[in-house]
Amino acid sequence: MHANEAVARVQRMRVLVALGGNALTADDGSAGPGDQISAAEAAMASVAELIVEGVDVVITHGNGPQVGNLLVKNELSASVVPPVPLDWCGAQTQATLGFILVNALEQSLAEQGVRRSTAVIVTRTRVDRDDPGFAKPSKPIGRYLTRDDAVALMDHGQRFEDRGERGWRRVVPSPEPREILDAGVVSILADQGYVVVAAGGGGVPVVREPDGTLRGVEAVIDKDLAAALLARSLKADRLVIATDVDNAVIGYGTPDAKPLGEVSVAEARRYADEGHFGSGSMGPKVEAVCRFVESAGRPGVITSLSNIVAGVRGESGTVVVPNG
Amino acid sequence: MHANEAVARVQRMRVLVALGGNALTADDGSAGPGDQISAAEAAMASVAELIVEGVDVVITHGNGPQVGNLLVKNELSASVVPPVPLDWCGAQTQATLGFILVNALEQSLAEQGVRRSTAVIVTRTRVDRDDPGFAKPSKPIGRYLTRDDAVALMDHGQRFEDRGERGWRRVVPSPEPREILDAGVVSILADQGYVVVAAGGGGVPVVREPDGTLRGVEAVIDKDLAAALLARSLKADRLVIATDVDNAVIGYGTPDAKPLGEVSVAEARRYADEGHFGSGSMGPKVEAVCRFVESAGRPGVITSLSNIVAGVRGESGTVVVPNG
Repeated sequence: MHANEAVARVQRMRVLVALGGNALTADDGSAGPGDQISAAEAAMASVAELIVEGVDVVITHGNGPQVGNLLVKNELSASVVPPVPLDWCGAQTQATLGFILVNALEQSLAEQGVRRSTAVIVTRTRVDRDDPGFAKPSKPIGRYLTRDDAVALMDHGQRFEDRGERGWRRVVPSPEPREILDAGVVSILADQGYVVVAAGGGGVPVVREPDGTLRGVEAVIDKDLAAALLARSLKADRLVIATDVDNAVIGYGTPDAKPLGEVSVAEARRYADEGHFGSGSMGPKVEAVCRFVESAGRPGVITSLSNIVAGVRGESGTVVVPNG
Repeated sequence: MHANEAVARVQRMRVLVALGGNALTADDGSAGPGDQISAAEAAMASVAELIVEGVDVVITHGNGPQVGNLLVKNELSASVVPPVPLDWCGAQTQATLGFILVNALEQSLAEQGVRRSTAVIVTRTRVDRDDPGFAKPSKPIGRYLTRDDAVALMDHGQRFEDRGERGWRRVVPSPEPREILDAGVVSILADQGYVVVAAGGGGVPVVREPDGTLRGVEAVIDKDLAAALLARSLKADRLVIATDVDNAVIGYGTPDAKPLGEVSVAEARRYADEGHFGSGSMGPKVEAVCRFVESAGRPGVITSLSNIVAGVRGESGTVVVPNG
């Protein structure tokens, strides 16, 4: 790197882009390897646009459908090979999704004559041992099972809820992310000009035992909340949560439905308190963006993947800004 | 980091330690999560000794038994979720083994009052598209199957060999590693004092297509040969291949059996040519060490995990040195 490039680098904007796990499957939700690769290629074409614009990018991603597949494998092969815990499933998806994302990104960049090095970091996220989420597992994961199959797994310590006609579904704790333990690695590499993929699936959840040991735990961390934490750790200029719509919407499903453009974090919080955003989908994204804006004092964006360049410029999407 | 620490760091010895995948299972070969974690703890206790001695360590590892488990899961769940290719299985084991190795290492170090940051890098290894290995798959992987089960998978393009009474076994290409594509990441982090786990299972095998795209391929890369390449890329002072014996042995199984101590690379090559080392076990380790010594001009060591501190000092184990 030449000295003037180093200077230029310092002045570049750093953006953390969070992709949904559903953005990494086929449109119909199929999550075979080919489906995931095609989706990664489409997603990285958009992210490459941002990089070509001169933005330094760190990427994180969800992993719901991909972990779903791994849980089915655990289940169907349990009599022959030992199932692996949920934290291992998360680690596995960090590796496979990271692998296909960087391959696709490097290719998209090369097509535009840009060369950037990439890195995929297996990332641990610390949660509290006494997080209330552990007492009351509430995050549904995996496929619906019959009562008998659910009972068999409940005998092995898993928790299931009866979801009526669709069947029984496993629920796991979703504790608050407290610290992205490997954020320092991401920071060093981003400073060196690498495009880094990190904290996939919210990070591999670990607790620190009283003796200092880190231990993986069976839990799911909200990837957007983890992204907010990582963005702050990295001193990112923007957190962009890429989703399947261009904007968060207030009054969704009513005649007064209105896409949100630029709003202060106080306004965004007020809309959230009024129940404008779904608890399973847009709600956590708005919460994550608000946390980033409040802690970092910089804007957070919710928009579609194809819209992220305009979103980062503040020209499109839902842009949550610090209170004026 | 203080300036004097930076100076001290430059003077430290850098060692690449390669662990066998079998060292990361229970003694009886069981490879459940608990077995792997216990084995990782034992292995990292030895590696921590090396770090406490003031050595900078990079870790790589095999993944045979762990990939074996993933292949069984692929097989038994194929009617419900799409199987993932072998390169993805490799990536998955980089994440899970890396995760448990760094947790165990940080703990071992903490017990000795030493704090070092760690990183796990999802690592791609480039192989040649026209490697002769692709024409003649020869590396056996996974469990033995009945003829009928093998035929069903052969209909899906997999290659199997009839191994007589034990059954049929899948064989895959084992191409030469040509380039550790993510070695730059490892180098940056090692320079910053991180203990890095990289190139697990020899790296995720990829080929570069004529248009520049990287594509994962169904192959197995010898982890020791990849380790030799990585050690050279990192300008390591020593490559240490940790195995289950203290020394390579010549005349193994004969009355003239003799453990090898310090030998020149020319001598080691001569013993290899004379067939002293098994083609499936010690042979590739000797080959890997010879390649490192020849290309880097520094010693390579084959010894047991519990012996690595003495091995690095040249006081124990089989130490292959440049020709005098």
